[in-house]
Amino acid sequence: MKIKVINPNTTVSMTQKIGAAARAVASPGTDILAVNPQSGPVSIESHFDEAVSVVGVLDEIRRGERENMDGYVIACFGDPGLMAARELTKKPVIGIAEAAMHVASLLATRFSVVTTMNRTIVIAEHLARNYGMEAFCNKVRAADIPVLDLEDPASGAFGRIVDECRRARDEDRAGAIVLGCGGMADLTDAISHEIGLPVIDGVSAAVKLVEAIVSLRLGTSKHGDLDYPIAKPFVGRFAYLSPESGEAAA
Amino acid sequence: MKIKVINPNTTVSMTQKIGAAARAVASPGTDILAVNPQSGPVSIESHFDEAVSVVGVLDEIRRGERENMDGYVIACFGDPGLMAARELTKKPVIGIAEAAMHVASLLATRFSVVTTMNRTIVIAEHLARNYGMEAFCNKVRAADIPVLDLEDPASGAFGRIVDECRRARDEDRAGAIVLGCGGMADLTDAISHEIGLPVIDGVSAAVKLVEAIVSLRLGTSKHGDLDYPIAKPFVGRFAYLSPESGEAAA
Amino acid sequence: MKIKVINPNTTVSMTQKIGAAARAVASPGTDILAVNPQSGPVSIESHFDEAVSVVGVLDEIRRGERENMDGYVIACFGDPGLMAARELTKKPVIGIAEAAMHVASLLATRFSVVTTMNRTIVIAEHLARNYGMEAFCNKVRAADIPVLDLEDPASGAFGRIVDECRRARDEDRAGAIVLGCGGMADLTDAISHEIGLPVIDGVSAAVKLVEAIVSLRLGTSKHGDLDYPIAKPFVGRFAYLSPESGEAAA
Amino acid sequence: MKIKVINPNTTVSMTQKIGAAARAVASPGTDILAVNPQSGPVSIESHFDEAVSVVGVLDEIRRGERENMDGYVIACFGDPGLMAARELTKKPVIGIAEAAMHVASLLATRFSVVTTMNRTIVIAEHLARNYGMEAFCNKVRAADIPVLDLEDPASGAFGRIVDECRRARDEDRAGAIVLGCGGMADLTDAISHEIGLPVIDGVSAAVKLVEAIVSLRLGTSKHGDLDYPIAKPFVGRFAYLSPESGEAAA
Amino acid sequence: MKIKVINPNTTVSMTQKIGAAARAVASPGTDILAVNPQSGPVSIESHFDEAVSVVGVLDEIRRGERENMDGYVIACFGDPGLMAARELTKKPVIGIAEAAMHVASLLATRFSVVTTMNRTIVIAEHLARNYGMEAFCNKVRAADIPVLDLEDPASGAFGRIVDECRRARDEDRAGAIVLGCGGMADLTDAISHEIGLPVIDGVSAAVKLVEAIVSLRLGTSKHGDLDYPIAKPFVGRFAYLSPESGEAAA
Amino acid sequence: MKIKVINPNTTVSMTQKIGAAARAVASPGTDILAVNPQSGPVSIESHFDEAVSVVGVLDEIRRGERENMDGYVIACFGDPGLMAARELTKKPVIGIAEAAMHVASLLATRFSVVTTMNRTIVIAEHLARNYGMEAFCNKVRAADIPVLDLEDPASGAFGRIVDECRRARDEDRAGAIVLGCGGMADLTDAISHEIGLPVIDGVSAAVKLVEAIVSLRLGTSKHGDLDYPIAKPFVGRFAYLSPESGEAAA
Repeated sequence: MKIKVINPNTTVSMTQKIGAAARAVASPGTDILAVNPQSGPVSIESHFDEAVSVVGVLDEIRRGERENMDGYVIACFGDPGLMAARELTKKPVIGIAEAAMHVASLLATRFSVVTTMNRTIVIAEHLARNYGMEAFCNKVRAADIPVLDLEDPASGAFGRIVDECRRARDEDRAGAIVLGCGGMADLTDAISHEIGLPVIDGVSAAVKLVEAIVSLRLGTSKHGDLDYPIAKPFVGRFAYLSPESGEAAA
Repeated sequence: MKIKVINPNTTVSMTQKIGAAARAVASPGTDILAVNPQSGPVSIESHFDEAVSVVGVLDEIRRGERENMDGYVIACFGDPGLMAARELTKKPVIGIAEAAMHVASLLATRFSVVTTMNRTIVIAEHLARNYGMEAFCNKVRAADIPVLDLEDPASGAFGRIVDECRRARDEDRAGAIVLGCGGMADLTDAISHEIGLPVIDGVSAAVKLVEAIVSLRLGTSKHGDLDYPIAKPFVGRFAYLSPESGEAAA
Repeated sequence: MKIKVINPNTTVSMTQKIGAAARAVASPGTDILAVNPQSGPVSIESHFDEAVSVVGVLDEIRRGERENMDGYVIACFGDPGLMAARELTKKPVIGIAEAAMHVASLLATRFSVVTTMNRTIVIAEHLARNYGMEAFCNKVRAADIPVLDLEDPASGAFGRIVDECRRARDEDRAGAIVLGCGGMADLTDAISHEIGLPVIDGVSAAVKLVEAIVSLRLGTSKHGDLDYPIAKPFVGRFAYLSPESGEAAA
Repeated sequence: MKIKVINPNTTVSMTQKIGAAARAVASPGTDILAVNPQSGPVSIESHFDEAVSVVGVLDEIRRGERENMDGYVIACFGDPGLMAARELTKKPVIGIAEAAMHVASLLATRFSVVTTMNRTIVIAEHLARNYGMEAFCNKVRAADIPVLDLEDPASGAFGRIVDECRRARDEDRAGAIVLGCGGMADLTDAISHEIGLPVIDGVSAAVKLVEAIVSLRLGTSKHGDLDYPIAKPFVGRFAYLSPESGEAAA
Repeated sequence: MKIKVINPNTTVSMTQKIGAAARAVASPGTDILAVNPQSGPVSIESHFDEAVSVVGVLDEIRRGERENMDGYVIACFGDPGLMAARELTKKPVIGIAEAAMHVASLLATRFSVVTTMNRTIVIAEHLARNYGMEAFCNKVRAADIPVLDLEDPASGAFGRIVDECRRARDEDRAGAIVLGCGGMADLTDAISHEIGLPVIDGVSAAVKLVEAIVSLRLGTSKHGDLDYPIAKPFVGRFAYLSPESGEAAA
Repeated sequence: MKIKVINPNTTVSMTQKIGAAARAVASPGTDILAVNPQSGPVSIESHFDEAVSVVGVLDEIRRGERENMDGYVIACFGDPGLMAARELTKKPVIGIAEAAMHVASLLATRFSVVTTMNRTIVIAEHLARNYGMEAFCNKVRAADIPVLDLEDPASGAFGRIVDECRRARDEDRAGAIVLGCGGMADLTDAISHEIGLPVIDGVSAAVKLVEAIVSLRLGTSKHGDLDYPIAKPFVGRFAYLSPESGEAAA
C-alpha cells in the first residue's frame, strides 16, 4: 500500500518530521511518501496561508493519481483543500484535524485541541463544527507560538504546549488531547508522559485511517458532490489543472 | 494483536457470520475472537432487547481483560453498553454503529443508514446525534424485516435491503450507505455491486479502527468519566460484577 | 392511583428516603410503592454502575405490570433503562433527571444541575442534550462527593452541595437549581433556604408528572419504537425476560 | 388551589370550552377560573393577532395576583406573553404549547403538532425550537382551517384535523399528536379514538403542570431575568401598567 | 426614501439621540422620521416592558403605512414586535439587534454583545439563537446599568460600558462589539477609539439595511406567515387595530 | 466609493453580467469595478473548481488594495476564499451567498436556495450552516443545469430555474428565493414576476451590504483571526504572495 502524506507548507524539515511520524505507525507493507509542494507558504498560520497552500496540495493529489497511490493524508491541521482533493480521486483522502478529532471521540467523551497560534483557534473551531465534533471538543487552546518555533528546540515551544495541555486536563475536563499542528507530530509521547492523558497526533491517526479504509476496500464516494470534477477548460497559469473527461474513467 | 468481537445477541450463526466478516479484514497478526453471551435475547430489535443484552456484553469485556485482549468491538448497531464497556478497560472499545458512521463521514458528505426493523430507526437516529453525525446522516431507513430473517436466504431480506439502499441513493442524495445491523456484515459487496456506492459494514470498520488505535498505542482515556468504575459492592446475582480497587491497578 | 418509585441502586436507606420524598408530595389517593432491586450496585456513580442497574429496573417494571401500577418513576439521575422501561408498559414512566430538567425549564430561563461525583457530570450533560434541555442547562456542577456520603450526616456533604449551588447562582446566572441525585431528595428545602432559588428534586417532580399524565388519561405511546417488545426467546439466566406476544395484548 | 386559565382571544364560547377542558382534568380542590380579555382579537392566527393579545393576557395576570391565584395557564398555542407574564408573579405560568410539547416528549420519542392555519406553522416551529423540543417534534402540520371554524360543527373542521393527524401517524412516524390550538381542547378523545395514538391537548396538560408545580411548592424564579419588573413609569394609556417597587415586596 | 425609526420606549431624549444616529448615516435623499409611542414604558429593561411596548410599535407601523414610509427600524435591542410589524407592511422592517448581529457577523468571526442591565442578557441570547447568530456571538455581557443612565453623563455609564467592551476583546476573543441598547447609539466612535475594535450600533446598521433592501426593490415577503393579518374583528380598546381585508389590497 | 466585484471564474460574459447587476443597484457615487482572474476555471461547479479559483480571487483583492478600493464582493455562490480575502484588507469583503442569505432572512422566516448543478447543493448547505442560516434555509434546490447554460438563451435554463422556484414556493413553504449562482444575477425580476415572491440575487445584495458597511465607517476586524497575514516567505510561483510586515501598516 502506498500512502502519500502531503505537508501543505514548504518547509522540508517539517515534511521530514511528518514523514517520520507517519512511518513510525505505518503497517508493514505500507510505503509512506512524504512530500510538500514546491510553491507556497513556509508555514500555515492564517486563512490566507491556508488558501494559498491548497493549489500545491491538489497538485500533489493529481501527481499521486499517476503514481498509483492508494490513499492520501493532508498534514496541516486546517485540512486545506480536503473536499477538492477528494473530488480528484476515488482513494481515501484524510485530513489530520479530521483524523485526530474522530479518533479522540472514540477514546474520551470530551477532548481539547492544543494548537500553536491564537489566530488559528477559530480555524479549528470551524473544523470541529464541520466534522460534527462540537459536543466532544470542549475547547481549542493555543500556546501562542509560531509554527516554525516547533522546529527550534531552543524556542521553549514544548514547555508552553505542555502547559496548555495541562490546563486542558485540569480546567476543561478533557479526557484526551488533540495536537493542533502537523509540526507537533513528534511530541505525542513526551506530552502524554507529562500529563497522563491520551494525546492524539493527526498525522499518525490519519495514516492509520487511510490504511483502514483501503483494507476495507472502500474509498471516496464518486456518487454526488465528490464525483470527479466536470471536464472543462481552466485558463491561464492554471490551464494544466483542467479536468478531463478521461479522469473519471481512469 | 487480539481483538474480541462481541455479538450482543445469543444467536451463534450470527456470531459466526460476524466473526467471518471481522477476520476477512483483519491484518496479518490480528486474532479475532468472536463471541456472544450465554444469556440474553436471540436478536436485538428494541430498546428492551438492547438493555438486557448489556450485561452479557460487559461480562465479555471483563473476561476479555483476563484474556489480555488488545481491543473490543461491540457488534450490534445500537452499540449497547458502549460507555460502560469503556470504563472496564484502557483498551479501545468500538461500537459498530459508531465505526460505520465515522468511516462513512470520511468518504461522503452525506450518507444514509439502512437498517432492519422500523422500530429501531429511532435508535440509529439517537446514535447519529450522540456521535455528532447528524449533519452527515441524511436519513435512517428500514427495510422492515426481522433481524433473524437475515439468517434465512429464503426470506427475501436481501432484496428489500437493496431496495432501500437504492432509495437512499436516489431519493436521499446519499453518497454512501451504512448498513444498520451486525447481521448484514456479509452483504457489503453484494449491495455495493447493486447500487454502485460505498457500503460500510460496521463490524469490519470497527475491527480496522481498533487495529488503528492499538497501532497508535492509544486507548480509552482513564482520566475522567471513563476511568475504571469505583470499587464498591454489587449485591445479589450481580455481586460478581463488583468493581474492585485492584482493577484499575491491573 | 398506584405509583412505583424504583431506586435503581440496592441501598435500602436511600430507597426509604426516596419513598418519603415521593409520599410528601403525592396527592391524596396516590399510593407510593418505593422499591429497589435485590441485585445490583449499592450506588450508581459511573456508566458501568448504571448499566448493571438496568436489569433490576426492568424487573421492577415487569413486576409492576402484574401489580397493576398506574405509573413508574426511575429514581436515579442517570435515568437508567428509561427507553426500555417504556416499552414494557403503556403507563407513564418518568426518569428523575428528565422530570427535574423539564420542570426547571418552566420556572427559569437558565438552570444549573448540581450532582455528586465529578465523573457523572458527563452523564447529566448527555441527558440534557437528549431531553432538549441544552439551552436551558447552563452548567452541570459536581460537589465531588460519593453518593453514599449523602446517607451520612457527618460527611459534610450538605455543605459542599450548598457551596456548589451558590456558585451556580452567582457564577452561572442560574435561576433555578436541579439536584442531580436521587439521594438528595430530602435536601430541597434546606438548600432553597440557603440560596433563595427554586430547587428542584427529580423524585418529587417525577411523581407529580406521573400523576399529571395519569389524570390526563395519557400514557406511553404504543405506536412505533416504544411499542411492547417483540415476542422472542431470551436464553440463559435472562430467559425469564423473554417478551411474550401476550404482553402487548394484556 | 386556584388556577386562572386565560384564553388570550376574546371569543367567549372558546373561553367556555377551554374552561370545561380545564375543569375536566382539575384535581378535587382546584378551582378553575377561565377568562378572556375584554379587548383584543376574536381569534389568534398571526404574529399580529398574537402581539396585540399580550396586553390582555398581562392584565389578567396582574388581576390574578390581586385575586390570590396559585397559578396561571395561557391558553393559546403561541403562548403569547409567556416570559412577560412570568415576571409579574412568583406563581407558575404555563403556556399550552409548552405544556403539550413537554408532556408529549415524555410519552413518545417523536411527535407531530397539528394546528389550524398554515400561516401559524412557523409560530409552532419557533416555539418547538425555543423549548428544546426540535428533536422530538417531527413536523408541524396544519389543517388550514380558520380558528373559529372549530366553534362551528358544520364547518368540517374535525374531519380535516383527523386527516392531518392520520398523516402525522403514517407519514411522520409520530408516536403522539400535539393539538396546536386551544380551541381543539374538546377534541382529544375523539381524535385519539380515530387514530389510536396519545393525543395531547395543551389546556389540560398545562392545568396539570400548574397543579404539579404548586404541589411541589415551586414557582417562577425571581432570581435573574424573571424577577419582578423594575419600578418605573409607564405613560399614556398604559400608565396603569407601571411596575411599582411594592410589587416585588408583595 | 422615507424611513421611520421607532424608539419603542417613550423617552423623547432617547428618541432624539436615536434619530440623530440614524440621520448621521442616512444616504442623501433618505428622510429619517424618528418617533416614539405616546404610551408605554419610559425604558425597556425586562420582558414585561418589552411586551407592553409592542402595541405602540405596531401603532407606529400602521401610521407609517398611511404616511407612505419606505421602511422601518425598531430601535430597541429586544426587537419588540418584529414579526408582527412585518405582517403589517410589505416594506422592510428591521430590528436593531438583528441588524447589528448580522453586520457584526460580516466583519468578524466572533463578536460579543455589551448591553445595559444584567437581566436583559437572556433576551439578547434568545435573539442570537433566533437569528442564527449563536456561533458568532461569543458572549452577551452587561454593564449592569439602568438604560436611562445612558441619558445622564454624570452616571459613569460610559466607563462601565467601555470596561465590558475591553473584557469582551481580551477575555472573549471578540473581533467586534455589538452595542446592546438603542440608547448607546451615540457611543460607537468613542468606544471604538478606546478599544480598537469595530463597534456596531444597531440603529445605524438597521438604517443602512433598510436602505439596502429598498434599493434592491425588495421587501417583506407577503407569501406565508408574514402576509397581512387576516381580516377579523378586534374588540374593546383594541378595536381600532382590527385588520381589514382592504389592508392587503392597499 | 469604489467597490470591486470579483467574478471568481474566467468567463468574461458572466463578469459583464455580474457587473451590470452590480451597477444597476449601486448608489450614486459608487463605482463598480467588475473583474475576473486571468487564470482559473471557466465556471465553478465543484469543490475543485472553487479551490483553484481562490488564488485568483486573492490576487484581485491584493490588487484592489493598491487601487484603493473601499470594499469587495466575491461573486460566486460558494464564496470562495472569503476568510482569506478578509485577512488581506480592513475593508469589507462580502460573499454573494452570505449576502443573499442574510438579506433573505430579513424578509421571510423561511427561504429556499435555487442553484444550478445538483452537485453544488452540498456547498450551499455547508454555507447555510456556517452562516447560521440553517433554520431559515428550508431547502437547497438545483435545476441541474451547467453554469454556462445561463449564458445561452437557447438552453432552456430559465424555465427549469423557474420550475424549481415554483416548487420552493409550493412545496417548501419558502417565503423568499435565494438565487444560488452569480450567473443568475440578471434573472431576479423575471423570476419574481413568475412566482410572486421576493427573489434575492447575491451580487446586488452584496453590493448594497458593502455600501452599507462603508457608510457605517466599519470594516473587517483586524483584531484576532482576520488580522493581516503574518509576514513570512512564500516560495516558488507563489512567492509574490508573501505577506509583508508593511502590509498591516499600510
